[in-house]
Amino acid sequence: VDPELRVHDITHNIPKFQPWAASQVLAYAASCWPAGTVFVSVVDPGVGTSRRSVAALTKSGQFVITPDNGTLTHIAQTPGLGAVRQIDEAVNRRPGTEMFHTFHGRDVYAYTAARLAAGIIDFAGVGPEFPVDEVVRFHVPSPVVEKGAARGVVVSANTHFGTVVTNVSAAGFDAAGFTLGCRVAVEITHGGQAVCAGEMPYVRTFGEVAVGAPLVYTGSTGDIFVSCNQGSFLDKYGISGAGPDWQIQFRLR
Amino acid sequence: VDPELRVHDITHNIPKFQPWAASQVLAYAASCWPAGTVFVSVVDPGVGTSRRSVAALTKSGQFVITPDNGTLTHIAQTPGLGAVRQIDEAVNRRPGTEMFHTFHGRDVYAYTAARLAAGIIDFAGVGPEFPVDEVVRFHVPSPVVEKGAARGVVVSANTHFGTVVTNVSAAGFDAAGFTLGCRVAVEITHGGQAVCAGEMPYVRTFGEVAVGAPLVYTGSTGDIFVSCNQGSFLDKYGISGAGPDWQIQFRLR
Amino acid sequence: VDPELRVHDITHNIPKFQPWAASQVLAYAASCWPAGTVFVSVVDPGVGTSRRSVAALTKSGQFVITPDNGTLTHIAQTPGLGAVRQIDEAVNRRPGTEMFHTFHGRDVYAYTAARLAAGIIDFAGVGPEFPVDEVVRFHVPSPVVEKGAARGVVVSANTHFGTVVTNVSAAGFDAAGFTLGCRVAVEITHGGQAVCAGEMPYVRTFGEVAVGAPLVYTGSTGDIFVSCNQGSFLDKYGISGAGPDWQIQFRLR
Repeated sequence: VDPELRVHDITHNIPKFQPWAASQVLAYAASCWPAGTVFVSVVDPGVGTSRRSVAALTKSGQFVITPDNGTLTHIAQTPGLGAVRQIDEAVNRRPGTEMFHTFHGRDVYAYTAARLAAGIIDFAGVGPEFPVDEVVRFHVPSPVVEKGAARGVVVSANTHFGTVVTNVSAAGFDAAGFTLGCRVAVEITHGGQAVCAGEMPYVRTFGEVAVGAPLVYTGSTGDIFVSCNQGSFLDKYGISGAGPDWQIQFRLR
Repeated sequence: VDPELRVHDITHNIPKFQPWAASQVLAYAASCWPAGTVFVSVVDPGVGTSRRSVAALTKSGQFVITPDNGTLTHIAQTPGLGAVRQIDEAVNRRPGTEMFHTFHGRDVYAYTAARLAAGIIDFAGVGPEFPVDEVVRFHVPSPVVEKGAARGVVVSANTHFGTVVTNVSAAGFDAAGFTLGCRVAVEITHGGQAVCAGEMPYVRTFGEVAVGAPLVYTGSTGDIFVSCNQGSFLDKYGISGAGPDWQIQFRLR
Repeated sequence: VDPELRVHDITHNIPKFQPWAASQVLAYAASCWPAGTVFVSVVDPGVGTSRRSVAALTKSGQFVITPDNGTLTHIAQTPGLGAVRQIDEAVNRRPGTEMFHTFHGRDVYAYTAARLAAGIIDFAGVGPEFPVDEVVRFHVPSPVVEKGAARGVVVSANTHFGTVVTNVSAAGFDAAGFTLGCRVAVEITHGGQAVCAGEMPYVRTFGEVAVGAPLVYTGSTGDIFVSCNQGSFLDKYGISGAGPDWQIQFRLR
């Protein structure tokens, strides 16, 4: 489309077939890029079926080209969606790919993103607008904070370091009465079934506990994370996924 | 050689020691790049032995720097080879690396490619030309299409999604009488030994079968692929490789 | 910081929590980059604790931004360190990240490197200088070469190809009386305990031994390596790490 475009790979390590994980990583990564950036986010188990192909304009002036299958959930929360359009494949499909139904990432999404980034089309040229509130989103229960306790969702299970990322903000955690150095009882459930329970300290960083020991801390998103120092919390406690059906509860001991 | 060159990593995930796989991926990837692109393709189990080091000029005006061990097989079919030269290591070897015999990818291939891309040498400057028909190629049996049946080769076993890629074209498949919605008996052999047999529908895309179920479809190359919906066909049916000794047969049920 | 900066990923495959491995790979990679390059090297199990965050200026005019936990060991040997400064986080920390203690790679190191590379700060702007000999280094025993024998350290256990990289130079090996074609007894110990022993030829390259068979050869760093032809020496002989406590001995048979 335009050899002068600068193309960056953010990640190819999203867990397969998990739009939730794609949504969470996109929102985290996008916050570091300038307005005008065009993101292509394709985790698309329904490729070639009736899900919409869309381009979203966020309230921070970025674009996201993606299947409409939940991958806009987190970016719709922050910074929010300004407008969304359905990709008109009669115009925005790489010529000669009309017979392919299993690789829209290549034939439609990357192609449309490149044309938008190169200024060959503007946002209106993507296709017809539709109401933002029709965008498919996962239901994300709001975190609950009360005196001496907090509940939220496991938003990401980082398989590289084995970290649990939650949606309980550090500010909320502190407001609940947890203070650095306190002991915290942690329980994680999947679909309502207990998966793990443990007790660990609330500290600033890994090196404040023994190698292999678990800890609760303010992670790199400003939310509360759970890890082991130089070990995998996921492996040690049998956490195999993330999303709205993975809930986490903290109680002050 | 030239800090202004634009260098792109296409993949570091070719299965180790498999020139066949390198050849197949190169031909697929190259088709998306412009004329004048210089590719470096190094899967080189014979590094430092008597295999030639070569630069090929394709009929589409691209260059490939590679060991001559079969990695040009697919690109020699399409778009075809226009000319080929043996790298003269007296000129085209990074100075100070003469004592190294195990990393020609770094010392000879990347260095020669960079000099060619930067215009420091032209194609003739690579080294002496030799006949294109001396280029080492794997024998690829042509696919056979007849009424109600098709036979071909497993050209790639995509380990990320667990997909089987064949060299039976969608056009040939349709000519044999397979139509969307029909049932297909699939058999795969390795060295003549049966590896798997199954029956599955011929559909447009994954979402038309149940999660985990197998399907036959037109893949992203225009050839017939075999997959499971959100699962690995390779794992489910024990397919551990690809190449001319992996044959696949389709019969209309 | 500056959208015009050119950013290259050298690797994200350093073994977790191993500053030794980071140090060895950095020194190897840095030798291929020009003066003025700014490297960010973050293997940082002590993130947020009292280890220093530093910027080093090497004797070849490159910069390294890193935690001071041993990751400068090899580059301090070659090309050597010219000067080193402690990062002043009051100036050189991404605004709005003051409450984060577990991702200095993002909040301090990448940010400082970008500002230095973009010319927003100069080297003095990093923070206060401190003596080069205070830089944390692993003790690396010098290789010992004598008639018919050589001893050194396993400096890297390359998990992709399963190769053992040593710090015994090819020149020293040859001086000890090993000649191409000779047989070599190889012993590896970990913490003084025998891990493996074998006998293999000293050859130029892989293809001179049978597939799967071990060999000793001059590797791509100019030092002596141990591998199997198209197989993993590490897996075959149970080598699970590298560093000063992994010693290797060669004896002429």
